[in-house]
Amino acid sequence: MGWAIALHGGAGDIPLNLPLERRLPREAALHRCLQIGVDALKSNRSPLDVVELVVRELENHPNFNAGIGSVLTSDGTVEMEACIMDGNTKACGAVSGLTTVVNAISLARLVMEKTPHIYLAFDGAEAFAREQGVETVDPGHFITPENIERLNQAKEANRVQIDYTPPVQKDGIRDVPVPEGDQIGTVGCVAVDGHGNLASATSTGGLVNKMVGRIGDTPIIGAGTYANNLCAVSATGKGEAIIRATVARDVAALMEYKGLSLEEAAAHVVHKCAPKGTAGLVAVSATGEVAMPFNTTGMFRACATEDGYTEVTIWPLVQNGDV
Amino acid sequence: MGWAIALHGGAGDIPLNLPLERRLPREAALHRCLQIGVDALKSNRSPLDVVELVVRELENHPNFNAGIGSVLTSDGTVEMEACIMDGNTKACGAVSGLTTVVNAISLARLVMEKTPHIYLAFDGAEAFAREQGVETVDPGHFITPENIERLNQAKEANRVQIDYTPPVQKDGIRDVPVPEGDQIGTVGCVAVDGHGNLASATSTGGLVNKMVGRIGDTPIIGAGTYANNLCAVSATGKGEAIIRATVARDVAALMEYKGLSLEEAAAHVVHKCAPKGTAGLVAVSATGEVAMPFNTTGMFRACATEDGYTEVTIWPLVQNGDV
Repeated sequence: MGWAIALHGGAGDIPLNLPLERRLPREAALHRCLQIGVDALKSNRSPLDVVELVVRELENHPNFNAGIGSVLTSDGTVEMEACIMDGNTKACGAVSGLTTVVNAISLARLVMEKTPHIYLAFDGAEAFAREQGVETVDPGHFITPENIERLNQAKEANRVQIDYTPPVQKDGIRDVPVPEGDQIGTVGCVAVDGHGNLASATSTGGLVNKMVGRIGDTPIIGAGTYANNLCAVSATGKGEAIIRATVARDVAALMEYKGLSLEEAAAHVVHKCAPKGTAGLVAVSATGEVAMPFNTTGMFRACATEDGYTEVTIWPLVQNGDV
Repeated sequence: MGWAIALHGGAGDIPLNLPLERRLPREAALHRCLQIGVDALKSNRSPLDVVELVVRELENHPNFNAGIGSVLTSDGTVEMEACIMDGNTKACGAVSGLTTVVNAISLARLVMEKTPHIYLAFDGAEAFAREQGVETVDPGHFITPENIERLNQAKEANRVQIDYTPPVQKDGIRDVPVPEGDQIGTVGCVAVDGHGNLASATSTGGLVNKMVGRIGDTPIIGAGTYANNLCAVSATGKGEAIIRATVARDVAALMEYKGLSLEEAAAHVVHKCAPKGTAGLVAVSATGEVAMPFNTTGMFRACATEDGYTEVTIWPLVQNGDV
């Protein structure tokens, strides 16, 4: 038993030769956000407060696909989504289709606490944001040159994919450049305190070049986000695959119904249930265990536990030289 | 082994003295929709086709809360949602926030088949409907005198609930009238063919007097709707409770991870996981079993199996005099 925290900044096709100028700011952000979470847990803030606090920080970082870093729809607009869940009470809140809200995760928490509902989306969610007085900005605020470039790259890649000609492979390196959007991702955080209270939070801008109105796994309880009295899970990757595999709930269901440990359950879901290259997750158990499996090339992630263990990594540990 | 079909027209606080003029048209609709489904299964239509066909019929019936019978938001508008899932492939499609689409379930199927996504909502879903050329009507078409009356009753009940004074109980009969909206519900259908191919479909107008933008359990894979190679499930009731309990996925997870039968799994989820008075479901297994448990007063439901069993009921069988 002891507190534990884990967070992610997205799983995906992150090349091992990711340029330092892209790698370092993200690693620094993971370090900073982890420290914020650890400090909050040490100050006896509730896990629900901790995951909201950490995800807000990640949303405020332009290099992750959430908040200010949110990628664009095919129409060049932003539609942000987020979800938060308290393991003790199973209270939860979710939002989709936000265009002006600076911190989607905090609006998700307000849906949970201030409405009889769990999930508000699009105009109704925006109206609720106004009513609650959360910080908003002009939608144009999110449409940065970097996001426009990511969209253009994705549109280009889509064209290649639709007019499909198998790309020439040279030493396993793809000729078709990976869109930048594949290298940044959804953010999430899970935490448990020394009493076994659990919480999970996830936030995203969604898929680059997604259709307007598309909802992914992040706001779906049991897909991208879940917490109960056994564990808390936040997933990242290709939303459609994660929805189909009910990833976050299945980690908990394998513990509850099959008696697996957190590590076994998380590994089973990521490596046996979700197709390769589609999913990663961070999870903590009521007893303070941490699991951070992924079946993609990499996942921006970090964790810390009360006994002093800390990890901030991108690729599999063995390749990263940390083991 | 053998084909089987089950459908529902909503679970809720359906009084045992439901007036005949409300009961009979719904029972007739359940009979007719069941027959349509049975005929389609006998004609070797795929379970996916069958559940779509049956739910379209239920959507076209004004006495159920879906399609033309959809209840109204607090703003007096309609926001319909639907979801369809194929058990074999786990392909699925979902829609929310529809205001003009006559058959939400068919648009959900088009999302599944014609887009790279699973779930489209609100303006994006409406734009997709136009693009696909599905039948639409003016939003005012759904705003019938009956729906306005249901909304007014719900608003009245809400006021009573907010300014809470325990109502006087007389012989167990409540002084506060049950809003009509509580007596009509979400529609859904599950089917399996003789080869064990499964499918599920659910459609709803949501909750009477819901906030604009509210998403319920119906379109959430694993909550209101789910199918895999073991079973197909469609849930109905209070959406927030069903989301929290990941009702539809948990029926399948209990079979998959704990080895329960369909009947055991469905009963466990409805009677142990979801709070009393909140949930019901219809489910079929790959081997042609049927389960239709609910923890509400009643559930409009019907089923048939290849061996000739047929049932069309509202209340628990023993109270209904059918056993």
